[in-house]
Amino acid sequence: MAEYSISGLNKVVRGPKRANYDIDTINTILDDAFLCHIGYVYNNQAIVIPTAYARKDDKIYIHGSLKNRMMLSLLDAGEASVSITHLDGLVLARSAFHHSANYRSVNIFGKVKKVEDHQEKMNALEYILNHMIPDHWNNVRQPNEKEFKATLVLEITIETASAKIRAEGVNDEPADLNLPIWAGVIPIKQVAFEAISDTDLPKDIEVPKAVLNYVRNNKR
Amino acid sequence: MAEYSISGLNKVVRGPKRANYDIDTINTILDDAFLCHIGYVYNNQAIVIPTAYARKDDKIYIHGSLKNRMMLSLLDAGEASVSITHLDGLVLARSAFHHSANYRSVNIFGKVKKVEDHQEKMNALEYILNHMIPDHWNNVRQPNEKEFKATLVLEITIETASAKIRAEGVNDEPADLNLPIWAGVIPIKQVAFEAISDTDLPKDIEVPKAVLNYVRNNKR
Repeated sequence: MAEYSISGLNKVVRGPKRANYDIDTINTILDDAFLCHIGYVYNNQAIVIPTAYARKDDKIYIHGSLKNRMMLSLLDAGEASVSITHLDGLVLARSAFHHSANYRSVNIFGKVKKVEDHQEKMNALEYILNHMIPDHWNNVRQPNEKEFKATLVLEITIETASAKIRAEGVNDEPADLNLPIWAGVIPIKQVAFEAISDTDLPKDIEVPKAVLNYVRNNKR
Repeated sequence: MAEYSISGLNKVVRGPKRANYDIDTINTILDDAFLCHIGYVYNNQAIVIPTAYARKDDKIYIHGSLKNRMMLSLLDAGEASVSITHLDGLVLARSAFHHSANYRSVNIFGKVKKVEDHQEKMNALEYILNHMIPDHWNNVRQPNEKEFKATLVLEITIETASAKIRAEGVNDEPADLNLPIWAGVIPIKQVAFEAISDTDLPKDIEVPKAVLNYVRNNKR
């Protein structure tokens, strides 16, 4: 079981029982999300921005406009902090104090570089689109020269990471178990609904298998 | 229509057509989410952490352990950046370049202070629990002296904020509209499932109305 080494940066201090440094566990949480939240320092202040991404091996790829402030600030800083969180449930205890949530979250710290090589950059754009909808890249018109040049792609090499997972029921105080108060868990899930075809679409164009599969795999 | 003033910090530079500084719009997006991502600077690096919160007027409340590094670093910095994002759909265009997402996101910048006053602190804990499940605070055992003292509550006064909203269909290049390529939107939503009662619960304890209402209002 390969793990990330633990340093001051990624060590889970609060709730260490929920901490996990296993690379496969972390990768599964990463691959299961669409959005990440990236932090960067701007004028000595932390700024947090949501963005799409993809993972390939130990690298995270993000893309944006050439003039995107977050992208340029990340490149300038040379390092990034990335947070990915799945909310899986609300944990409703007998006491206010023991209310909690079930979740899977990952924090990544890594080095940032601009992807300059033409093939690497095109591959990264493919990873990002296929992370949104698996196997959809070959269904669409791929970037032309102008679009390709207008896109900045950054590669974040994961140097260290940690996961925190809570996946259990209510943990109340033993003395509270006999109180006449309800307790339980409300499961929460992000789900997909049937695709709505663009109204400009010619009638004979069918929804591709990649889209049908995505919806089927992400239904409630 | 009251708006936040626009500064270098909250000005939406990329995609200004999607920008919104209206306070009511921003509050609605804030009140509709459970998790926020908070950024803070630690050893000159931005770190991003997910946490629960509540809004009351122009203030955001978060809570944690007295020893929580994020909480203590925020207090030390005296200012915070908070990001809240709802993913509402995947926008699948004819071209890779025009793939996008429908979303509602808010970025807040504000001053941080510790809530010291007993009543204010108890109120903040009530806001946070009721933001999780509306009207549930009075159903549960409220914090005792020990629990109350072990909890750190921070108040973030919103100084400036901005929203970005995309809520539309595919925007393809006119030249691509005749390509034999499917395009459309997959709606995405975070939904709640029926509450699962704790197995230790006496049989005569019913699921409270607040919980039933939450599940009903957050079903697909």
